[in-house]
Amino acid sequence: MAEAVRHDKTARQLRLLSDALDSGRLGPVRRLINTLAPAEIGNLLESLPPGKREVVWGLVDPEDDGEVLVHVGEEVRESLLADMDTDEIVAAVEDLDIDDLADLVEDLPDTVIDEVLKSMDRENRERLEQVLSYPEDTAGRLMNPDVVTVRADVNVDVVLRYLRLRGELPDHTDHLYVVSRRHQYLGRVSLAALVTHEDSTPINRLIDDEQPAIDVGESAQEVARQFSDHDWVSAPVVDDNNILLGRITIDDVVDIIREQAEHQALGAAGLDEDEDLFSPVKRAVRGRVVWLGINLFTAFLAASVIGQFEVTLQKIVALAVLMPIVAGIGGNAGVQVLTLMVRGLALGQVGASNARILLWKEIRVALINGLLIGGIVGIIAFVWFRSPLLSVVIALALILNFCAAAAAGVLLPLLLKRMNIDPAVAGTVVVTAVTDVMGFFCFLGLATLILLH
Amino acid sequence: MAEAVRHDKTARQLRLLSDALDSGRLGPVRRLINTLAPAEIGNLLESLPPGKREVVWGLVDPEDDGEVLVHVGEEVRESLLADMDTDEIVAAVEDLDIDDLADLVEDLPDTVIDEVLKSMDRENRERLEQVLSYPEDTAGRLMNPDVVTVRADVNVDVVLRYLRLRGELPDHTDHLYVVSRRHQYLGRVSLAALVTHEDSTPINRLIDDEQPAIDVGESAQEVARQFSDHDWVSAPVVDDNNILLGRITIDDVVDIIREQAEHQALGAAGLDEDEDLFSPVKRAVRGRVVWLGINLFTAFLAASVIGQFEVTLQKIVALAVLMPIVAGIGGNAGVQVLTLMVRGLALGQVGASNARILLWKEIRVALINGLLIGGIVGIIAFVWFRSPLLSVVIALALILNFCAAAAAGVLLPLLLKRMNIDPAVAGTVVVTAVTDVMGFFCFLGLATLILLH
Repeated sequence: MAEAVRHDKTARQLRLLSDALDSGRLGPVRRLINTLAPAEIGNLLESLPPGKREVVWGLVDPEDDGEVLVHVGEEVRESLLADMDTDEIVAAVEDLDIDDLADLVEDLPDTVIDEVLKSMDRENRERLEQVLSYPEDTAGRLMNPDVVTVRADVNVDVVLRYLRLRGELPDHTDHLYVVSRRHQYLGRVSLAALVTHEDSTPINRLIDDEQPAIDVGESAQEVARQFSDHDWVSAPVVDDNNILLGRITIDDVVDIIREQAEHQALGAAGLDEDEDLFSPVKRAVRGRVVWLGINLFTAFLAASVIGQFEVTLQKIVALAVLMPIVAGIGGNAGVQVLTLMVRGLALGQVGASNARILLWKEIRVALINGLLIGGIVGIIAFVWFRSPLLSVVIALALILNFCAAAAAGVLLPLLLKRMNIDPAVAGTVVVTAVTDVMGFFCFLGLATLILLH
Repeated sequence: MAEAVRHDKTARQLRLLSDALDSGRLGPVRRLINTLAPAEIGNLLESLPPGKREVVWGLVDPEDDGEVLVHVGEEVRESLLADMDTDEIVAAVEDLDIDDLADLVEDLPDTVIDEVLKSMDRENRERLEQVLSYPEDTAGRLMNPDVVTVRADVNVDVVLRYLRLRGELPDHTDHLYVVSRRHQYLGRVSLAALVTHEDSTPINRLIDDEQPAIDVGESAQEVARQFSDHDWVSAPVVDDNNILLGRITIDDVVDIIREQAEHQALGAAGLDEDEDLFSPVKRAVRGRVVWLGINLFTAFLAASVIGQFEVTLQKIVALAVLMPIVAGIGGNAGVQVLTLMVRGLALGQVGASNARILLWKEIRVALINGLLIGGIVGIIAFVWFRSPLLSVVIALALILNFCAAAAAGVLLPLLLKRMNIDPAVAGTVVVTAVTDVMGFFCFLGLATLILLH
């Protein structure tokens, strides 16, 4: 399997490192670490328990410290920063790109921030302040103000001479941006166009003005969608007056896409995306107990439904044996529908215009699945308890619960979204609350009606 | 919320389109569609129910047809292809990049494939055959053989003259690859270096030979990890003899990362990632009923545990009311641990070297959460049923089930992985099977021991 192959490399490094650490030979550990990219070192640090983590952190080349800090989760970052004094932190972060520094700055102690600001030249300090003035998760926060601009009224030769004079370009520069005298964004010229055209070609013949600039207030998720739909490597960011402010690059977008996926996967289990594999026990408890409490509430809701049927249960104990099946399978069916809806919502594919069609489709699927699964369960229940009526009751209850699951799976995520609650996080709780309640109610209710009379 | 903002644009387009379609005005629909990128059109098509989908597909500019086909899921692709005749398909796909064509080719009818191959020139046909000769989900399948190579013994001026002669560069060309006479990969030269250095600079002074080339057999997931860890835009692909075969670009990597995330999210609910929002009912039933059947098996397993305690349940009906709480909350706690482990495994952060430490940490978290949640449940149960012993039983059962959940959450994904079963897909079923069985067993077992004697 691909999954197994994929991280052989990382897992092997981890094992090597772990062995070397256990044997106390720090030389090989240092050599191993310094062959890795900062993101890889970050990943490795996250996989180490606190004691070993500190040892390895101490062996990382100080030049990589800043980049490593950018590439670890918030909790691990805090634990790494706790091991550094002010001078070390300042040295680590002062060479970072503005967008990375902006990302990091809020986790730094105030005294460190002051020192970092003091160590920067005025231009960079102003740029950092500008980036920090935009809300988190917007284009303004993701952009790097370091862009290369040219005028439209020159030719390729002038631009090449300018670039040779300028020297190194910022990372991921695939385009130069063409701006007006007032620094308004006019379009872009690719390096590929520059190197494939004659010196005498005027820049305005090479301008691509089709790519719209990104608005500084655009949400990070919309930025990610545009990058992946248009296959961009970088994109210009402008303000309301079309003044060029900076540039977003694909590496940050890849991080956003990864974070979104993590947020969905962890959020669905009520976990904070910053929870560290080795979070201190206290912290892990705090992070998880709230979610368990919410689920406890819905569990008691379901129990109270069962409580209404104590008399029935006392008379027919088989009902107690079978009732979790009705609730459980209904929950699974509901989560399937929910998962499809959450994906559809995340891709913008589901809205008021097609909700009714989806509901109708899912009800039909539920009826057929209900008949199939209900039939199987009915047969097994008959073999077990030899009561044909009980089999009919459980089959009917399953069909009803599958329909409830379909309705809840389609409608609740839409409702949650309208209430500004993330359906990827809260969806499972509310959908399974419905299928639990409906499952117990239909099964025990039908049993009371049919079996007790 | 960001999620709500993000797809305002897509949702708005969908609404506009839907309204225009309903009113039968196809002119505005066509104009709207042709302002979109192929990936956006694909997304829109996926969000339309079959009837409307065909109408809109008919309005897409034939020039975009191929790219749109690349950007939709397999099920939708099939429905779109079904609307086209052979000539249309050949015209749509013949201008695609080799890697995109390779991706598509398996969904095409055999007669169409023959026509497509006939329409290609020999060089491209050989390239396509080469790409198709590598297994799916490997670097060989992702690469595009269209690369720009230079020799090390020339200078910038020669390269620039060569590029001007050559004209347009392949998309996402940020580096030229330096090869030996035998086409062995020696290193890369960035376009940024070319445009910032004097004409007379020898290429071998600009070579970056630090980036390792990707092996053609590398898994797609490992490729994605390397791209995101190293912030690459493109990377060279070589065979065992270091002969340069092609190039992988970031746009394909972004697709892999998105697909991985989808696979995890949908797989956890037992859904096929190709399931279309508007899959025909029959197909949706077939896709989901297997998963429900597997879950049915574990539900009956849990029921059979309850069946062992019929006598106890008959005597104390309150047990039937409360037992789903023990199983349900245990399941939630188990899924939290499982989710952390699945993430750790996917990142290569979890292995034999730290499993024991993680297990011990999770057991401690489980004990504390068990005491907290068990305490709360015990108190509520006392208020409800006025039996102190019953409260003790349920609190104890919860603590035990939290510990079982922690152990199952840590150990089962490791075991599944060793058995080459994807823990992201199968994990929830097996972990909740454990928490259901243990929940019912501990609660009813303790009740039998403590309350009946």
